Amino acid sequence: MEKNRYEVRFGGSGGQGIITAAVILAEAAGVYGDFHVCQTQSYGPQSRGGRSKAEVIISKQEIDYPHVIKMDCFLAMNQPSLDAYFSDFEPNGLLIVDSTFVEQVPTSRAISLPFTRMAREDLGKEIVANIIALGAVVQLSGIISLASLEKAVLSRVPVKFRELNQQALQAGIAAAKQVNLGTLPRSSVTEEILI
Amino acid sequence: MEKNRYEVRFGGSGGQGIITAAVILAEAAGVYGDFHVCQTQSYGPQSRGGRSKAEVIISKQEIDYPHVIKMDCFLAMNQPSLDAYFSDFEPNGLLIVDSTFVEQVPTSRAISLPFTRMAREDLGKEIVANIIALGAVVQLSGIISLASLEKAVLSRVPVKFRELNQQALQAGIAAAKQVNLGTLPRSSVTEEILI
Repeated sequence: MEKNRYEVRFGGSGGQGIITAAVILAEAAGVYGDFHVCQTQSYGPQSRGGRSKAEVIISKQEIDYPHVIKMDCFLAMNQPSLDAYFSDFEPNGLLIVDSTFVEQVPTSRAISLPFTRMAREDLGKEIVANIIALGAVVQLSGIISLASLEKAVLSRVPVKFRELNQQALQAGIAAAKQVNLGTLPRSSVTEEILI
Repeated sequence: MEKNRYEVRFGGSGGQGIITAAVILAEAAGVYGDFHVCQTQSYGPQSRGGRSKAEVIISKQEIDYPHVIKMDCFLAMNQPSLDAYFSDFEPNGLLIVDSTFVEQVPTSRAISLPFTRMAREDLGKEIVANIIALGAVVQLSGIISLASLEKAVLSRVPVKFRELNQQALQAGIAAAKQVNLGTLPRSSVTEEILI
């Protein structure tokens, strides 16, 4: 991790496993890695209707403010969550969406991968879409090591489902490796103003 | 829930399932109940060594400060977590401990029940100690309805383990029903000072 503080938000509907993904990322960084981590989810009357969010703040120092200020990375598993929770996006952040359920992206700094379709068609279990996505998030963002991530995934999963989850993780990492982040535009608002 | 804002902390070691219990309580209140909920866990270098914590704030109104100010209820699944995270206890709050792993309690407002021993001996699966404890917490605190709690438990558990988790929940509720909260002393620090 290059920055001192890295902010990740996960958005999706109730059944998409974003809280599990956030808890696993938090444990990977805080238990299996050497970071300070704060992981939060909020619910309210608005959490019905297909949108919920979970946040993970990862820091080299103690965390004073445990909520997202500017998202460095936003994983959106469906359109309602993307629309509802995009507002705190850091202009040079990274948006990763499940193209199975997201049609419109509000930034050009977006990576679309079909996490749910991969889970369904390649692994036969739609339920591991969140683990595929998590593999892609960590591979693309480089926040923490893939070794810590794998330990955290395996510690959270019943023995019977270990192999499936390992395959899901590897599928997400492999898909992300095909992406060339260098081709994403960088925001240059500041420079434009200065010129 | 009588109060406007209710604060619950769960403490235990990594394998004791306190984060899962906190997530389930949060979903019971925020998705299946009508509350605003914020659920948080923090990790850091201190989270090794058998102590970790998770917090759930449940409120009738929007939550401005999403962390524990004074715990209304503290579930401690082991001694190191109890020792480390007791400090914010509300004097008339309720401490619930797993007597399998907790020997010393720092308040007389404590209920000791052998959650892990019950899980192991009565249900044959130590892993559901957290669900037994959660049943007891909700029965004793009355924060949310048992119906919401059951829905949240079942939504978080693979189909294969539903019956086991339902039994665990009922075992926790039944054990808590044996407890007479009326016999707990109430803190009277204020009155003593006034007299």
